[in-house]
Formats: sequence, C-alpha cells, structure tokens
Amino acid sequence: MIESTKNTTVKRVARLKQRPEREETGLALMEGPQVVRELITHAATTVEELFFTSDGFERHPELAEAATAAGIDVEFVTDAVLSAMADTRTPQGVLAVAHQTPVRLREALPEGTRLVAILDEVRDPGNAGAVIRAADAAGADVVILTGSSVDPYNPKVVRATTGSLFHLSIVTGVTLEAVASEVRAAGIALLAADMHGDALPGLRDALLAPTAWLFGNEAHGLSDAARRLADRTVAVPIYGSAESLNLATAAAVCLYASAFAQRA
Amino acid sequence: MIESTKNTTVKRVARLKQRPEREETGLALMEGPQVVRELITHAATTVEELFFTSDGFERHPELAEAATAAGIDVEFVTDAVLSAMADTRTPQGVLAVAHQTPVRLREALPEGTRLVAILDEVRDPGNAGAVIRAADAAGADVVILTGSSVDPYNPKVVRATTGSLFHLSIVTGVTLEAVASEVRAAGIALLAADMHGDALPGLRDALLAPTAWLFGNEAHGLSDAARRLADRTVAVPIYGSAESLNLATAAAVCLYASAFAQRA
Repeated sequence: MIESTKNTTVKRVARLKQRPEREETGLALMEGPQVVRELITHAATTVEELFFTSDGFERHPELAEAATAAGIDVEFVTDAVLSAMADTRTPQGVLAVAHQTPVRLREALPEGTRLVAILDEVRDPGNAGAVIRAADAAGADVVILTGSSVDPYNPKVVRATTGSLFHLSIVTGVTLEAVASEVRAAGIALLAADMHGDALPGLRDALLAPTAWLFGNEAHGLSDAARRLADRTVAVPIYGSAESLNLATAAAVCLYASAFAQRA
Repeated sequence: MIESTKNTTVKRVARLKQRPEREETGLALMEGPQVVRELITHAATTVEELFFTSDGFERHPELAEAATAAGIDVEFVTDAVLSAMADTRTPQGVLAVAHQTPVRLREALPEGTRLVAILDEVRDPGNAGAVIRAADAAGADVVILTGSSVDPYNPKVVRATTGSLFHLSIVTGVTLEAVASEVRAAGIALLAADMHGDALPGLRDALLAPTAWLFGNEAHGLSDAARRLADRTVAVPIYGSAESLNLATAAAVCLYASAFAQRA
C-alpha cells in the first residue's frame, strides 16, 4: 500500500499528466474503471502498473480478476495517492500506467483499409476523444492526428474515447502532407469535411470507395492548405437554421455515411 | 448602471437559475453573445431585459445595434452583478431575460411536419442541448422533451443549443404516452432509437415518411414501456468495438439519416 503522496512512484506516475513526460517515456495514464477495463481487454500486454484504492478494488472485482488473469500485478494506494497520480478529479478507484502503442504512418494503411479519420489541428481533448469514439463505432480502421493536434494519450482524450483508443490504430506526430501522400498511395480518397463543400447526400457513390475523412480545428475548420490536399471537400448540409454542427457530431455523420454506403 | 449585487433586480434575475422560478414566471436566462445574438435575431419580441457590462457592450457592438433596432432597452451592470445573475461562470459580458415560448403539443405537429426529435428522461443539460442543436441542423420541425427530462430553458441547455432553441418548436411538460398518441394521429412514424433495434441502413425506405425519433436517457436508454409505444426500434449499428455512441452523436446519425432519405 502506497500511503504517501511524496512517494517517488506517485511523483513519477503524476508526471505522466504532462505531454513531454509522456513523449519521453512512451507511457500514458489510463484512469477510471471503463478505460482500464477496455485497456486490459484489448491491450493487456501494454500495462506497466495498475493501482487500486481498496474501495475501487471492492467495487470492481471484475477488473481485479481480469488483471490477475492477464498476469498484471495490482498495487494498492490511498485515495489521496490516487488523486495525486490522476489527471481526473475522480478516477473512481483505479488507474493504470500503460505503454502507448501508436502505429507508424507507413504501416497504418494496409491493404483493405476502408475508413480513416484524420484530425488536423484539433485541440480540444473532449472533441478529439469523441471523434475517436465515433470513428471506432463507425468501424474506422485508423485515426490519424496531424499538426498541433492534442495528444491522443492525454488522459482527458483517453477518457473521452471511453476505451475506443484501444480498438483501432492511432497515428500521431505526422504532418498532414505526409498523411495525404500516404493516403493517395494507398488508393484511398481523401475527403475534407468543410461547411462550404459539396453536400454529403449527393456523394453516395463516391463513398463506396475506401475513404479518409479529414476534419479540422473545432473553431476555425480546415486551413486552405489542408483543403487543397484533399480530393474533394464535402459538407454535412445544414437544413435548419443552426450555424454549424459540433465537430464530433459532424464527424459521426460523415463517418457513418461512408460506413453505410460501403456496407449497403 | 446596476452596481450592487444586492439590488432587487439582480436577485430577481438570479432566481431564474432555478427551475421552479422559471416555471412560475415563464421567463428564462439567456447568457453569452452567441445565444443573445440568436435570441434577438429569431425571437426579439420575447426579450424582457438585456444586460451588458461596459466591456461586453464594447466587444459586441453588433448586439447593441441589433437590440436598438429591435427596440430593446439595454441596462448596464458591473462584472460582479453580471456574474451574480448568470448561471455560467463567464457570460462574456451579456445576458438577457426572455419569455419562454414553448409550443403546445396539440399545435406542435401541423400538416407537413416531417422530422421530430423526442427526448425521454434525458437528464444531462449538455446532451439535451447538443441533440436540440443536431435536430435543428438536420432540419427537424420540433423537439419534444418528455417525462423528467431536463428543462430546455435551463441555462446550460440553452448554451449547449448555441441558439438552436430559437430555431424550432419546443414542447415540454408532456408525457410520452400523450406524445405517442399525437404523433400517431398526425400520421408520423415513431422510431425508438435503441441499440438492440433493427440496423439503421436497412430502413432507408421507412425513413422517407415523416418520422419522429425517440431518444432515451443517456445512461439507461429507453424503458421497455417507452419502446413499446414506438412503431419500430432502430439501432445505429456499431461496426467497430465501441460499446456505444454518445446520445447526441447517435441522435445526429439518426436524424440525418431521415433528413437525407427525405431529401434524396
């Protein structure tokens, strides 16, 4: 049982809230029962350390069992120690440290890739996480974060993905230019989601092919340069009087339009 | 200029943060420049009072102009007074008190109604607001909140709608049974969104007709009783490994599926 927030383990784990520390170590914080359950189910071999409060351990016996089955040791900590380690205010009694498992761009678009989501300059952790979750639901193969997009291993992003981070390939630290060139080489159409583009429902046939959707910054959308890299710009039409859709909502409509067309 | 947070106007306005006070007075708080701009543009005659800080007034001359054009008097308040009145931490210098304009159920589904969103037992203000925004974008005619759903005039809901609250009809304070019966009488198909329903893309033909989508509580979904009231239960299929979609995302996919089918 770790009882002191001054313990070196606690300090080491807490530093993973900071992006530079995550980049240097290749580790990330995974907080809360839902995320940890998906982590153990889908990526048990990446788990480095697993911490429970006694209360968290009692409330989630299935997690303790899954950890044991996967050969993961459990360490007990006090509530204060878990709070000190965690980024979230209420990590609900459980937190893991796991290795990040990003995929290299060159290996991210194998033969058979049909649906890709690219986030360029997306800054808000909640938005990025919600798009990763929607991409997973729509059956996307990979999510690629370009430019100065938020780190997908930021604990707030991880939590917003509700585990989807472990369900598909994640590429990060690449330029949009490199991604566009790789997408083109893979024979995948690059569609830029932009409110001034062609209306989505007219594109049903175009969506049958393997598609990579490019989504821009939540406030400013895609830059001109980013749009120019795309084969086509496509809009989710606004039929009512709303000024816009939020990023994750628009992304879900686009990704599902492709998924529905490809599976029709 | 109102300078004291103990001013009776301030106390009266601040009480509108509470649902009982909103229900008794029929008034609501509208906070922040985006919401106030949409309010003045789409529902100027409902505005009872409009408050600016000097800073807010200078930063949003277009709002001051629109208010003057609409014959709305402006009152100036200090930052502390605006904070005391507002539900949000940062109302960004402007806040209005406006009359709620809910529509009666019997008048909510006139001839020609094609797309309806019903929220049953939806409790989270952010979710409810996001669904109202998505419904507006998809061209829905009306949003109906049933059971113990959150008050659509809750300031957090208002803000999350980003003005969409003023773009379509809102019905509240009705039972789902009454709504189902009215929907049926209007010849509109009632589709319950439920993860165990028929997969959405198979229903393209069914979606051509006027459709009312029924969405349930964000954590527990729809009750058995609610599902039984529907003509059909329909799922947004999960093609990947995500456990679920969030409510607003699923609602956007459903509402746009109808909008696309109806406009094809």
